[in-house]
Amino acid sequence: MIQPLQLWHKVLAVRNNAPLVHNITNYVVMNNTANALLAVGASPVMAHAHEEMEDMVNIAGALVVNIGTLDSYWVTSMLKAIGQAQQLQKPWVLDPVGAGASQYRNQVLHQLLQAGSPAVIRGNASEILSLANTVSATKGVDSTHSSEQALQAAQAVSASFNTVVCVSGETDFIVYNNTITGVSNGHALMTRVTGLGCTASAITGAFCAVADGHYKDAAIAAMAVMGVAGEIAAAKSDGPGSLQMHFIDALYNLSEEAFVNHVKLSTHESF
Amino acid sequence: MIQPLQLWHKVLAVRNNAPLVHNITNYVVMNNTANALLAVGASPVMAHAHEEMEDMVNIAGALVVNIGTLDSYWVTSMLKAIGQAQQLQKPWVLDPVGAGASQYRNQVLHQLLQAGSPAVIRGNASEILSLANTVSATKGVDSTHSSEQALQAAQAVSASFNTVVCVSGETDFIVYNNTITGVSNGHALMTRVTGLGCTASAITGAFCAVADGHYKDAAIAAMAVMGVAGEIAAAKSDGPGSLQMHFIDALYNLSEEAFVNHVKLSTHESF
Amino acid sequence: MIQPLQLWHKVLAVRNNAPLVHNITNYVVMNNTANALLAVGASPVMAHAHEEMEDMVNIAGALVVNIGTLDSYWVTSMLKAIGQAQQLQKPWVLDPVGAGASQYRNQVLHQLLQAGSPAVIRGNASEILSLANTVSATKGVDSTHSSEQALQAAQAVSASFNTVVCVSGETDFIVYNNTITGVSNGHALMTRVTGLGCTASAITGAFCAVADGHYKDAAIAAMAVMGVAGEIAAAKSDGPGSLQMHFIDALYNLSEEAFVNHVKLSTHESF
Repeated sequence: MIQPLQLWHKVLAVRNNAPLVHNITNYVVMNNTANALLAVGASPVMAHAHEEMEDMVNIAGALVVNIGTLDSYWVTSMLKAIGQAQQLQKPWVLDPVGAGASQYRNQVLHQLLQAGSPAVIRGNASEILSLANTVSATKGVDSTHSSEQALQAAQAVSASFNTVVCVSGETDFIVYNNTITGVSNGHALMTRVTGLGCTASAITGAFCAVADGHYKDAAIAAMAVMGVAGEIAAAKSDGPGSLQMHFIDALYNLSEEAFVNHVKLSTHESF
Repeated sequence: MIQPLQLWHKVLAVRNNAPLVHNITNYVVMNNTANALLAVGASPVMAHAHEEMEDMVNIAGALVVNIGTLDSYWVTSMLKAIGQAQQLQKPWVLDPVGAGASQYRNQVLHQLLQAGSPAVIRGNASEILSLANTVSATKGVDSTHSSEQALQAAQAVSASFNTVVCVSGETDFIVYNNTITGVSNGHALMTRVTGLGCTASAITGAFCAVADGHYKDAAIAAMAVMGVAGEIAAAKSDGPGSLQMHFIDALYNLSEEAFVNHVKLSTHESF
Repeated sequence: MIQPLQLWHKVLAVRNNAPLVHNITNYVVMNNTANALLAVGASPVMAHAHEEMEDMVNIAGALVVNIGTLDSYWVTSMLKAIGQAQQLQKPWVLDPVGAGASQYRNQVLHQLLQAGSPAVIRGNASEILSLANTVSATKGVDSTHSSEQALQAAQAVSASFNTVVCVSGETDFIVYNNTITGVSNGHALMTRVTGLGCTASAITGAFCAVADGHYKDAAIAAMAVMGVAGEIAAAKSDGPGSLQMHFIDALYNLSEEAFVNHVKLSTHESF
C-alpha cells in the first residue's frame, strides 16, 4: 500500500508542476472548483465551446468531465474533449453527478463511457451503484449491505472500463484491479457544503496530470488531501459557510506534517 | 395569525424531511442557493436539460423557477418543469427576477404564468409592480405611495393567479386571499449581497414542499428564517463578504430560542 | 498624472451614482463579480438572452464583455450588446480571458473588436500580447523583455482601436495615447483567487459608467481600488479562501484615508 509520505510527494508534484486542468463541469460548483484547483497549486481552465475543445485538451494536463448541469450542447462538448484526450492519451476523470436521477443522465453516461475509458470515475455510493446497473457489463450487484453493494458495483465498473473507481463516503474507497484502498478522513459537515464531491473530482484530475499513469495513487492522494484539509477546516468552522472558506485556506496551507499525521489509509479485501 | 412557534415547527419539518427542491435558477446564485438549501436541511437539485425535466420534477418535493439569467432554452426547461409540476400537483415558486427590465422578461413571465399557477411568487416591490402591470387582469395600481402600490399590485397578482405573493423589502409582505402578513426581520447589509432574494425564493420552495398546501404559512416561515438568520449574521459581519458566510452558518445553526425571540410578525389590513 | 485624491472622487462618484453595469461574463466568476460591483456601490445586471440585449444596454451605464466561458450563443449576445452600446455611445469594457489559448478565442476577439471600440481592454500580459498578435494592425512585438513586450503590445492594441489598455500584473499598467500609468498595489495571494481579474474588468465598467469619457482615469481608479482593497484584505487573510471574503468587505469599507495612503501611482515613458 502507498504510504503517507509517498502521497505527500504527489502533493508536491502538483505544486511544482502546476498542471493545467480542463474542466467541463456544472455551473453550481465552477467557482469553488477553480479556487480549490488554485489552492492545491494547479491551474484551472473552464471552457465548453465546441470550437475550442481540441485546443483546450491540447494544452491541458488532464480533463475533468462532470455532468451536474448537463444539456445536449455540453454533452457534445464533453464528447469532443474526451475524444481528444483519448487521442492524446491524456487522463480524464468522470464525475457522474446524479447518476440514476434521470433516464437522460444514464444515457449520457453510457455515451461518455463509450467514447473512452476514464483514468478515474469518482462518485458517491448511489451514483456508482447506478452506474454499475446502467453501463457495467458485469451485473450482480445484489448484496443487501449497502457499502458492500457500492464496492461490488465499483469493482464491476472498474473491470468493465479498466478504470480506477473512487466511491466517496465516510470512508472513501479507491478500487482498481482487485485492490481496495480506504481513506478515512474528512468531516460530516463537508456533506452540507455543495460541490465538495465535484471539487474532489477536479483535484483528482490535477493529481492524474502528474501521475505518470499511476491513477490509483492519484485518486488516493486527491481523496487524502480533500479529507485532511476538510478536517483541519472543520475544526475552525462554525457551520458550512465558514467551512467552505477554511477549506480553501487549508488546501493552500497544507503542510507535510499535518498531512502525514492526519491521513488514515487502509486496505480492504476484494469481494 | 400564525405564531412564531408554529413557524418553528415548519423549520423542523424541513430539517426532518429534507425535501428535494428542483431549482431552475440563474447562474449568478446557484452556488449560494444550493448551500442555503443544504443549510436549512433541504436537498438541492439544479438541472435544466429538456430531456430530464419530467424526471427531476417527479423526484422533487417542490420546483423553484427563477428567470435571472434566462434564455430561450431555459424558458423551455421552465415550461416543461412547470407542466409536470402542475400535472403532479406539486408546488412551484416563481421568482420574477428583473421583471420590467426588458420586454422579453415580461413576455416570458406571461408564458410561465399561463402554464400554471405557482404556489408562491416572491419578488421585490418593483418586480411585483411590473408583474401586476404585465400579467394581472386587475389593473388600477395607481396609488402614489410606493409600498402601498406594491401591496395593491401583490393583491392583484394574487387574485389573478390564486397564488401567494411575497413582496420582499425592509418589511416583507406575504399576501393571499385578502390577508397581509408582515415579517420585519433582516438587515440592510443583506441588500449588498447578490442573490439573497433568490435564496429566499429557493427556501420558500423547501417550505412549500413540506407545507401540505399551506403555502402562505410556508412563505411566511421562509421569510422569517431568512430575516432572523440575516440579523444574526449581520451582527457578526464586517461587510457583505463576511455576511454571505455568516448567513449560511446562521441558517444551519438556527435555534428555536433565537428564532422565536427574533421573529417580528404583523398583520395588515387589506386595501 | 492623476492624483490619489482625484481617484478617490471617482470612488465616491460610483457610490453616489450607483451605475447599472451590464455584464456578459463567464459562469465561474458571476457571483463574485456581482458582489464586487455591489461592494463598490454599483448595481450589477447579468443577462445574455438575445431578445433582451438591447433593453439591457439601454438601461445600463456601461457594458462589460468577458469571454471566459464563451460559446456561439453568448458571442451573439456579446455582439448584440456591443452594437447597442456603440449606437448609444455607452462605454464597454473587454476582458479577453484566455486570449491565445484557442484559435476560437482569437477569432471571437477579432469579431468583437470589429463590432466596436471598447473604452477599456483589461487583461494580463499574455492575453494582451496574444491580442496584439491577433488583431493589432501594428506588429513588431519583438522585445526580449517580457513586461516591456506586454507594454509594446498594449500600445499597439491601444493605437489600433483607440482604446485604453490595462495590463494587469505585479504593477498594473494603464496605457493610452502614448502615456503609461502604473499602479503598484495588490498582493501576490490575489493570483490564487479565481476571477479577480474578471472582477477588475467589471469594476472598470462601473468607473467607466461615471467617467464622462475619461476612461483612462476610470481604469486607473478601478485598478487602484482593486489593489488597495486586496492589500487590506490580504493582511487579514490566512489563505485564498479568506482573502476572497475579506476582499469584498474591504471594497465595501474602503475609506478615503486608507485609499489615499495606500495607492502607489507612477508614470512611465512610452516606448
